[in-house]
Amino acid sequence: MSTSDRVELAVIGRQRPAVLEALGAEFTLHQVASVDDVAGSLGPAAGRVRGALSFPMVGFSAAMMDALPKLEIVTLYGVGLERTDLAAARERGVVVTTTPVLYEDVADTAVVLAMDVSRRITSGDRWLRAGHWAAGGQAASGRRFSGKRAGILGMGRIGRALAKRLEAFDMQIGYYDPRPAPDVGYRLYGSGAELARESDFLFLCAAGGPGTRHVVDAETLAALGPDGVFVNVARGWLVDERALVDAVTNGTIAGAGLDVFDDEPNVPQALIEMENVVLQPHMGSATHVTRTEMGRLVLENVAAWSEGKPLVTQVV
Amino acid sequence: MSTSDRVELAVIGRQRPAVLEALGAEFTLHQVASVDDVAGSLGPAAGRVRGALSFPMVGFSAAMMDALPKLEIVTLYGVGLERTDLAAARERGVVVTTTPVLYEDVADTAVVLAMDVSRRITSGDRWLRAGHWAAGGQAASGRRFSGKRAGILGMGRIGRALAKRLEAFDMQIGYYDPRPAPDVGYRLYGSGAELARESDFLFLCAAGGPGTRHVVDAETLAALGPDGVFVNVARGWLVDERALVDAVTNGTIAGAGLDVFDDEPNVPQALIEMENVVLQPHMGSATHVTRTEMGRLVLENVAAWSEGKPLVTQVV
Repeated sequence: MSTSDRVELAVIGRQRPAVLEALGAEFTLHQVASVDDVAGSLGPAAGRVRGALSFPMVGFSAAMMDALPKLEIVTLYGVGLERTDLAAARERGVVVTTTPVLYEDVADTAVVLAMDVSRRITSGDRWLRAGHWAAGGQAASGRRFSGKRAGILGMGRIGRALAKRLEAFDMQIGYYDPRPAPDVGYRLYGSGAELARESDFLFLCAAGGPGTRHVVDAETLAALGPDGVFVNVARGWLVDERALVDAVTNGTIAGAGLDVFDDEPNVPQALIEMENVVLQPHMGSATHVTRTEMGRLVLENVAAWSEGKPLVTQVV
Repeated sequence: MSTSDRVELAVIGRQRPAVLEALGAEFTLHQVASVDDVAGSLGPAAGRVRGALSFPMVGFSAAMMDALPKLEIVTLYGVGLERTDLAAARERGVVVTTTPVLYEDVADTAVVLAMDVSRRITSGDRWLRAGHWAAGGQAASGRRFSGKRAGILGMGRIGRALAKRLEAFDMQIGYYDPRPAPDVGYRLYGSGAELARESDFLFLCAAGGPGTRHVVDAETLAALGPDGVFVNVARGWLVDERALVDAVTNGTIAGAGLDVFDDEPNVPQALIEMENVVLQPHMGSATHVTRTEMGRLVLENVAAWSEGKPLVTQVV
């Protein structure tokens, strides 16, 4: 196939090098410099691009689709469709794929964040490394994890994987989800605040779709209370981050384990200075095996599309 | 009761203030300044002391008992009898009590240490707080926790509580224990090294009794291998600490989560400088609820002894 016959793909953000290398052998790749100006970034290639790679946190807007008139497929590295315009994709006949293989890792992340905050692991490590133990100091006790009450906001695939784990710690599990999941057998609460009021640990595992901004607000955090720990492995914008900073600063809640933030990669300075929070750079699914598997799914979807076969993990 | 009638107790180490306060209302307490010279520390009171409070990590030697000829009871705040001379206690008619209420918390600690090391939680928090994420850096991926092979050294109460938790993470569980536990249904290996060879995570949960020094040695760590994570929530002396430092430094194993050390509170400087270890100041049972319960058991045992009633948690 001569170079001019090669199918052209647009690349949004920093995709995995191994994925780009594999695709580059068969396709011509164009890195998009500015998501806000896809047409300008790509120049004449914009009229030839037939596929695109993006991330859920960037997504794919109708404007981006408009900039690529020959677009046929968008592959998202990750899950979560809140920033991808599915209606616009359907209208234009664009297919969208995700990499739905990260639920176990994200559930693991939720567990370790909750345990880490309650048992003071990260802060204890910091305290020891600073020499306080060797100097004769006595570290502060943490909060028990086992046997406590866990509230899960969002009983989707991550919420279910999380609940299964928490059961082994003899936790009492309740949940809130606008779409009840009667099959799970856990107690359903009428609102996030009601759930928080009856929880020692509040886990946010909800999808970040329309209408979900600040579903965890000052009222929910106040209901969780001064012995409560809040964990977010979903999306930063689901939480009123200013209220969260106030809550951990003022002792409205005991602490928080946060993998996601409102304006990533920026984390409020107040959180960075707190001892009762554990902060992660959006690593919920970041294990070698899962990231490799996610990359493989991107490649398989592009290959299937290119060969006219059924896609592996098609959303629309 | 006049002061001279009050029963006198020796206090070893820093016992809980609430316990000392409660005991002080009824007993005369003598803080022992030097464990190596109990008689000298207490002076004439040594001849009157009838009870003593200690910690398992200090224990109670025959020499300490000899220094207290009227000793009737030793209460240990914690579990583990490896530094208490039970034969000497029996000979002298001294009863010994522990606080066997910490197994769930220690099992929790083992889980969170393993997850923290494999998912790089503490190091990720450090990396984020140092500003690397905001500066555009990309954090390193961790290792998956769920679904891996867990090896448990010591299938006692902590080992069993740990195994129950790990099952919920779909882990394959094997164990080594010189006293097999056929009721647990997990695969028994012939040695620690054999277990390590077939494990992604190696958990040390064994009692630290006679003949257990360095049961985890360079050979065991080499068998665990470069993708393996070692966790110790038992006793520091069960591990050849120099071999462990070499193993995490040279990449012989992937990392380690350590709650205990050979010469507490001193932690090898090489470990303090490593990114692939999580270090805790012996906090396995350090939750408010468990520590309170442990203190309550000390008080209840002393009260029962004082009133001639059966002890609550008597060992000998």
